[in-house]
Parts: sequence; structure tokens; C-alpha cells
Amino acid sequence: MSADEGTGLLDGVELIDHHCHGIVRTDLDRDGFESMLCEADGPGRWHGSLFDTHAGLGVRRWCAPLLGLPSLAPADDYLARRRQLGVDEVNRRLIGSLATRKFLVDTGFQPEALTSPAELSAVTGAVGEEIVRLEQVAEQVVRTSDAARFADDFRTELSRRCAGAVGVKSVAAYRVGLRLDAARPTDAEVAAAAGRLLRAFESGEPARVADPVLTRFLIWSGADLGMPIQFHVGYGDADVNLADCDPLLLTPLLRALGKLDVPVMLLHNYPFHRHAGYLAQVFDHVFVDVGLTLHNVGPGAPRVLSELLELAPFGSVLFSSDAFGLPELYVVGTMVFRRSLTGYLEAGIADGAWTSEDAMRFATGICAANARRAYRLDAS
Amino acid sequence: MSADEGTGLLDGVELIDHHCHGIVRTDLDRDGFESMLCEADGPGRWHGSLFDTHAGLGVRRWCAPLLGLPSLAPADDYLARRRQLGVDEVNRRLIGSLATRKFLVDTGFQPEALTSPAELSAVTGAVGEEIVRLEQVAEQVVRTSDAARFADDFRTELSRRCAGAVGVKSVAAYRVGLRLDAARPTDAEVAAAAGRLLRAFESGEPARVADPVLTRFLIWSGADLGMPIQFHVGYGDADVNLADCDPLLLTPLLRALGKLDVPVMLLHNYPFHRHAGYLAQVFDHVFVDVGLTLHNVGPGAPRVLSELLELAPFGSVLFSSDAFGLPELYVVGTMVFRRSLTGYLEAGIADGAWTSEDAMRFATGICAANARRAYRLDAS
Amino acid sequence: MSADEGTGLLDGVELIDHHCHGIVRTDLDRDGFESMLCEADGPGRWHGSLFDTHAGLGVRRWCAPLLGLPSLAPADDYLARRRQLGVDEVNRRLIGSLATRKFLVDTGFQPEALTSPAELSAVTGAVGEEIVRLEQVAEQVVRTSDAARFADDFRTELSRRCAGAVGVKSVAAYRVGLRLDAARPTDAEVAAAAGRLLRAFESGEPARVADPVLTRFLIWSGADLGMPIQFHVGYGDADVNLADCDPLLLTPLLRALGKLDVPVMLLHNYPFHRHAGYLAQVFDHVFVDVGLTLHNVGPGAPRVLSELLELAPFGSVLFSSDAFGLPELYVVGTMVFRRSLTGYLEAGIADGAWTSEDAMRFATGICAANARRAYRLDAS
Repeated sequence: MSADEGTGLLDGVELIDHHCHGIVRTDLDRDGFESMLCEADGPGRWHGSLFDTHAGLGVRRWCAPLLGLPSLAPADDYLARRRQLGVDEVNRRLIGSLATRKFLVDTGFQPEALTSPAELSAVTGAVGEEIVRLEQVAEQVVRTSDAARFADDFRTELSRRCAGAVGVKSVAAYRVGLRLDAARPTDAEVAAAAGRLLRAFESGEPARVADPVLTRFLIWSGADLGMPIQFHVGYGDADVNLADCDPLLLTPLLRALGKLDVPVMLLHNYPFHRHAGYLAQVFDHVFVDVGLTLHNVGPGAPRVLSELLELAPFGSVLFSSDAFGLPELYVVGTMVFRRSLTGYLEAGIADGAWTSEDAMRFATGICAANARRAYRLDAS
Repeated sequence: MSADEGTGLLDGVELIDHHCHGIVRTDLDRDGFESMLCEADGPGRWHGSLFDTHAGLGVRRWCAPLLGLPSLAPADDYLARRRQLGVDEVNRRLIGSLATRKFLVDTGFQPEALTSPAELSAVTGAVGEEIVRLEQVAEQVVRTSDAARFADDFRTELSRRCAGAVGVKSVAAYRVGLRLDAARPTDAEVAAAAGRLLRAFESGEPARVADPVLTRFLIWSGADLGMPIQFHVGYGDADVNLADCDPLLLTPLLRALGKLDVPVMLLHNYPFHRHAGYLAQVFDHVFVDVGLTLHNVGPGAPRVLSELLELAPFGSVLFSSDAFGLPELYVVGTMVFRRSLTGYLEAGIADGAWTSEDAMRFATGICAANARRAYRLDAS
Repeated sequence: MSADEGTGLLDGVELIDHHCHGIVRTDLDRDGFESMLCEADGPGRWHGSLFDTHAGLGVRRWCAPLLGLPSLAPADDYLARRRQLGVDEVNRRLIGSLATRKFLVDTGFQPEALTSPAELSAVTGAVGEEIVRLEQVAEQVVRTSDAARFADDFRTELSRRCAGAVGVKSVAAYRVGLRLDAARPTDAEVAAAAGRLLRAFESGEPARVADPVLTRFLIWSGADLGMPIQFHVGYGDADVNLADCDPLLLTPLLRALGKLDVPVMLLHNYPFHRHAGYLAQVFDHVFVDVGLTLHNVGPGAPRVLSELLELAPFGSVLFSSDAFGLPELYVVGTMVFRRSLTGYLEAGIADGAWTSEDAMRFATGICAANARRAYRLDAS
């Protein structure tokens, strides 16, 4: 049994995971493991164990067999077996089971605790490419810059970082929400905002970009380099104000970025994924996925993917696991995606909605070719 | 045939209905009956009879057999039979058919026209517990208080009322919407707001709490007593501005209440129930249901429940009928809930998503154990 | 094979398409054809051909056989056959396949390029009725009026235009969004707003009503004439700010219009169609459809229609294709609607949710009788 078994139409179809993170290098106790399963902080007095979520059930279902246990083995058995094998063997077995040929890795969050794209490549045999997180670059640059120089220093450093990367990412959703003005800020506005950030940093606060002017400056700087721009949208942890993360709030900015013909990737999107599908239809340069969502919604996954595919053209949809930390999330995210897409496409063939040839074109597009085109991966 | 027939996995599983109201004690004519069926005011020139809604169809389907008629008997036959049997016999047959062991009854709306928790117990043999509506207490207190004393008088009276109750409820959604500031108002702010309310009351207006400061004061007062707090969220009648009832608007307040470790129950939530599921995942102390929604959406009920269960941990979901006035709504609400949950859990077993033991743990949790934990019902 | 084949319960049921547009009179090249398929501007560098959308697949599926090709013939074959037959024959074959008995045609957008209601009648044998677009009338009147006279001139002209029409339509969604104040503007406010429009027009800008005061004046003027009022809601092209097109934003205005007892039709509504269903339940005078949506969401169509039918009473739901320009969109929109509604109603019979007689009453209501009542079509 492998994580790719029984997925019919998608057997042998190449996968590019266009948005994921590294995995942890250390063994985890039960609380540590549960704290990485989904977007809850951890098991709780009120809701109990997070194994009683769809992510937890997915781990027991799909990963237990890869570690030599029966599917749906109890959580304690699974964690005991995990400790017995050790983190390296677990990573090898789980990540090694994937058919993914390329990972686009967001290196901007907890990079010291997680494997780099190169380490991920070593475990999987797949190619790891880098996505540069804009806020992380800004938060490094500000430490050695000043207000007047910040805009130039940032552009220089971003250009350097992007030379070896295939895209950039904004976590505006976590910092200021997505109700962003479309206008490119002036260098004077940027200097004033950088000054505020510097003063906060110098007074001992962490250097944290959470300012709409800087956020917009970062995005436009990425666009000026011609880099594809990923946005975290929707579903996240308790730090997000989800009401400010509807992708429709990005409409004016998307309209403006469309003039530069830079691809924009809207990640996750749940519970606003139908809104994202609409944006993907009316804006040629907008790509969408449901990323993180699928392995968190269990039996809802085929419906959620199908809702994204209501309005999004088949040429605008991408695959990502958004796996973070646990190698299990790569396995479950990939498996749930493959099953959901297979079920969707095969049902359409059976109903007469499209031909087998159409279905294969949609499948290869969503699994890899759309990402290859959007990120110019053949040229990278 | 009973309201519990054929529900497989849930046979014999105890039910706690954590949010409902009393039932009317008088016979109803057709217009009176239709006006209580769903959230429309009554039958209308344009949309016609409200029996042509899912609530109306549910009554004909599930209740007609309990009154000795064929399932889906015509509305006129049903109402004639109802009159023939009389309200007491109808109540006995309908409510008596339920397996619910405990009702948590909101006593704050039209208490004079509806049965009390004790009367409901007498008909059903189940235990009736009280949920105190915050606004109702405030609107009573203000009549005999003054602006300066209001905060203390309210706290004293709420404490007295809560001694015999298991939770409190806020109808902020109906009064000011859910875009509530998280901060606890000062006693001076409360005195000023109470003064405005008193002046309105003294000038002959009804004493109606529809002020964000008072609303927040009421909620914090309930939290200070350690009471679980219910919020009406989403779907309601034409008095609601549904656009202001998205549970995501409560995010800052939920974050603040989380520090007190007081459980919060988000009721109904439709059409924002996916938003509620998200909140239940990222906030340990948040519980959710789809209450009122299920018996109003007919064939949509399994989908709506399944959407709630996309992100909500199984330990965070509750059952309620939100039945109001008509004993039929208890029957239909309970029946549709049981069928929807059974179908969901059995499909997951068949698909290999969870084991039968998992499914029973989820079922007993959602049907009763989660409510028991959240409301500390064993201690009450 | 016809566009009406195999739809079971709806065989022989009369259809009224209560919202559609004319069709183009000229042959189209591939880019021209693709640009009318869905709400994208046209095929694009990033998302590729718009035949890889559900609208495109629907054309290949349902229309190819009507032109003598196999179902799902390749796009190039379809377009070649279309050119070979010529636009008149294509229109005759496609529109002629429909069972629709009456079309309510919005004549306010690109009237010179599209067939009129009378021309549509000539092709189909069905009756074409007119829906007057409020903004178009205003934009004509303003050219020959002045600020002080505008209100009166508009009312006079609207009354004249409505004498031969069955309803009016507002595209406020495209101009100012739906967050509209409920109050009827004063004639002084209207004069000031008309003055601003006139000055813009006189300085060479197009006369475009995009002002909340004028928008509200237009709507109230239609209501004063007792005309049913259609609103574009939700899904549209890239000119829309979809975040401002949630029908819930209309709640205060719907409440106010309810006092005049004028029917209001909320069109399309996706992705807010559940919100529209709620409004249809709590406001007697509100009617809803999912119009344009169905032929754009492919396998999602039964789900989308079913979601509308969660809260909307059966007496409040209407049928429309919102077909525009391409005769194919009439065929696909009608076919997808018929199949979706048939599937929904037959599943309910099979499940015991309603009787066959109930299902036929719901079917005939949604397909025609509700529109007949709402637009007083028997009297027209």
C-alpha cells in the first residue's frame, strides 16, 4: 500500500506541490505532534484530542500502513511506532512514498527548525525550489538599514534572494488583512513606514512588518521583479482575523497587478474558495488552490475541490499540500487531493460532461503543467 | 413508526438538546401554524403557503404518522387532525416520541405563551434545564434601577437567576449585530448607556437593550459568573440584518473570552456555518451547532451538517433543535439531525475514513457528551 | 436528441425564462466566441482556452449534437461546423430546440448588436417580453434634460417605456454596489446628482449612472410604477467588485420596498445564493434564481440549485438562463437547469421527502407559474 495507490486516472501523472514547507528534524511527543496536526494550538480541555479531527484521522488512515501498522490504528499505537522507528526513518518512509517530482518550498517561517528545500530533495529525490517570503526579507533588511535607505536596500536584497527562487509569498493576511489599497506606495511613504518599524525594533519590539504601506511595497517590489506572487488567503490559525481574509478584498490589487502580467497565486482560500474560483475566471493571471484545506476537511474534500472548480478554469488551478512540519501532512494532503481530483474527473467522464482526453488534459494541467507555466519552471 | 426509527448507528444514543424553547399551549389555526413553521412571518401573497418549505414538508412527513395519518398527508388533513386531537394530545404524542433526555431551554422570549422547562419535563419525562437570556434580565432590571446602580443591580440579579441555570444567552445578533468590540466596558460607560436606556423607557418606549456597550457588559457579566455563553448567530427572521451576523465578526471577543476559559456556544450559524467550524477548531472554548438550520433545509441537511464538520473538531459540536412553539419542530429537528449525523458517520465507516468505534465516540460526543462537558451538566 | 431530452419529471412542463438577453446576428471567430462564453474577457496567456471551462464543455456536450456533430466534439470542429451552417441556421437550430414559451428580455445592454424581443420571438415562436434597464433610460434622458427637470423627465420616460414592458432592472451591482441606503432620495438630492452627471457628460465623459443617489432614485421610480424590479446580484465579469454584491447588503432596501408590495427579483446571486435563499424566505416579495450560474458551474449545478432551495420557499424561485449573445448559452443554461431541477425533485420523491404531486407543483411553479404571478404575465 502506498500513498498513491488506487487513484486511477492520476496514476503516473506528475505532481508539482507548488506550496509547502519543510519538515521537523526531531522526535515529537503527543502534545507536540497534535500541535502540528491542524490549525488549533493543540489538544484542549474543551475540544479534546486533535486526533479527533480529519487531519488526525487522515494520519491514522493513510500513514499507519506506511509505518507497518493497520490503517486507522489507534493514535497511541501510531505515535509509539513513530518513536520506535525514529524521525529519519519516518520521514524517509512517508515522504519517500510520494510521487511528487517538485516541491516549491516557502522558507520564510521557522527556517531553523525545518528542513530546507535541499534537505527535502535529499530525502525525496524530488527537486526543491524556493519561494521567498517577502515579510521575512523585509524583517531582516530593516535590522541593518535605515528609513531613507530601506526601499532601496529591500529591493536589492529581494533581487538577490529571488535569483535562486521561483516566486515570492505575502502573508499580508496574517499581518494587515487583505483589504489592501491597489496603489503602489511612494518611496516617501515607504520611508515613513520603515521609520516606524525601525523605531519599534530599536525599542526592543520584534521587527514585524504589519503595516499596509510596507505590505503593498513588498508586493509591488516582487511584481517589479516579474516574480509570481503567492498570497496566503483564508484558513489559518487563531492569529488570523478570517473576516479580513476573503480573497475578494484583493480585487482592486489584482486588477492593478494584472497590468504587469505577473501571475498571482491565491492559496487555501477556504471558506472563500468559491470567491477565489470567480477571481481565477475573470482575471487571466490569477491561479488558485485549496492547499491546506483538503487534508483538514476529510469527507468534505471532494466537495471543496469541486466548489473551487465551479468557476475556476481548468487552466487556473494548482496543487499544493501546504504541508508544514509533519511529513504525515505531505502524505495525507497529497492522497486526499489525488483521490478528490480523480473522483471529480472520473465522475465527469461517466456523466458525459467531458471525454477521457479532456480529463487527462485537466489532470496534467492541475497536477503540474499549470504550475510549470505559471512559475516558468522549465526555464528555472 | 417513531421519530427515532431507522437511524442505525444512533439507536439508543442519548440526546441532549442544548438549545430550544417552550411550546405553545393553545390550538392554532392555519395562519397561526404557518407563522411558526419557519423564519417567514407567515403565508404570503407572493410566496404562497409555507407548507411548501422544507419545515412544512418535514411536518407532513415525520409528524403526520405520529398523529395517525399517512406520511406526507396534505396540510389541511394534518391541521384538521391536529385540531381533532387537541393541543395536549398532540404535544404528548409528538414530544413524547423523542429520545431526548435533557432539554436546555431558553426562557427569555415570550415566556408567558410557552411552556416552562418544568412543564416540558412533565410532558416528556426528560429533564428541563434553564438558559437565561441576558437581554431579558437587563430589560427587567432597568425598570427598577437607575443609571448609576444598573451595573451592580444587573450583576446581582443575573447571579440570582443563574443559580438555577446552566448557561446564558446573548441575542446581540438581533440587537446590534456581532461586530462587537472585545474590551470589557467600564462601569462609567455602562452607567451612561443604562441612562440612555432608562430615559427611553421613561418616555414610553419599550425597554429594549440594543446598545453595543450594554451588550458587551451583559456578556462579560455572564462570563464573570463562569457561565457558558450562547450566541444566536446567523439565520433568523426578517428582524435580523444577516450581514452583521457572521460569527467571524466575534473573533476579537472570542479571543478575549478565551482567557477566562468560559465555553462559548455559536448557535445555528447558517449560512456561515463553515466560518463557525473554523472558529471551533482554532478556539478550544468554542462550541458550535447548526440548530435551527437542519429542519429548514430539507435535503440540504446532510450537506450543511457535513460542512460544519469540515473544520470543527468532533469534540466541539453540539446538538440542538432550536424548536420554538410547535412541538412538530422538536420532532422534525431531531429526526433530521439524527438522520444527517447517522448518514455522515456511516458513510465514513464504509469509506474507511474512521472505525465504528471512532464513529460511536463522535456520535455520543455530539449527541450528549460534549454538551455535558461544556455545560458541566453532571455537576448541575 | 434535443436540448429537452431525458429530463423526466419536467417533460412537457412550460418554461418561462424570466431573465435573458438577445443573441448576436453575426458570425464569430474563435476569440470572439470564447469572449462570450463566460465572464472572462477571453482566452488568455495564463489560463488558456475558455473551452476548458464548464460553459465551454456544455457547448460541446449539448450543442454539438444539435449541429449534427457527436457530443463533446472538439472545439475546433464545433466552430468549423458553426461557420459552415451560418449564424441564422445555427440560431434556428439551437434556439428552436428549446421548450421555453416566454422570454423576458433585458434590452438595456448592447441593444444594437443583439436581437430584440420581437426578433427572438420570430426565431423561437415563443413570446418575447421586455425588461427595461433603469440605468439605460436614465443615461438617455440625461442627454436632453437638465438637473432641475431630470427627476420629472426620467419618471415620464420610464412610465412611457414601462407601458410595453413587464419589469425593470437595476445594475447597481456594476455601478455602485449593493450597499444601498433604504431611503427614497429627495428631488433636490436627485437634481444635485443629475447635475453632476450632466457636467461630466458635457465635458465629454460617457453618461454613466454610477451614483448611489441616482441609483436609489431609479429603483424607487420603478417601484412607484408598481413594476417588478430585477437586481443583478453576485457573479459577473471583472468590472464587478464582487465583495460589494452580496444580496444581504440589500436588506434595508428590501425591507423598505416590501411596504410597497412590489416584487423584487434577485438574479444569479452566486456565490451568495444561500444568502438570497434566506431573503426569499423572510421577505414575501423577494424572488430568486441562480440564472447565469448554472451553465458556468458544470457538475456543481445540482449543488448550487439545491443550496438556493435550502431556505427559499418553492413559491419564490424562478428560472432564467441569463443567456447573452450566444444562442448556445440558452441551450446549455436551459438544459443544465432542467436536469438539475429534475434530479433534485426526483431524489426527494425517492427519499420520501415529498410526493409526486408536490414535486409537480414545485416544478410548474419554478418553471413558469411563479414568474407568471410575480410579473402578472397573464394580465400583460
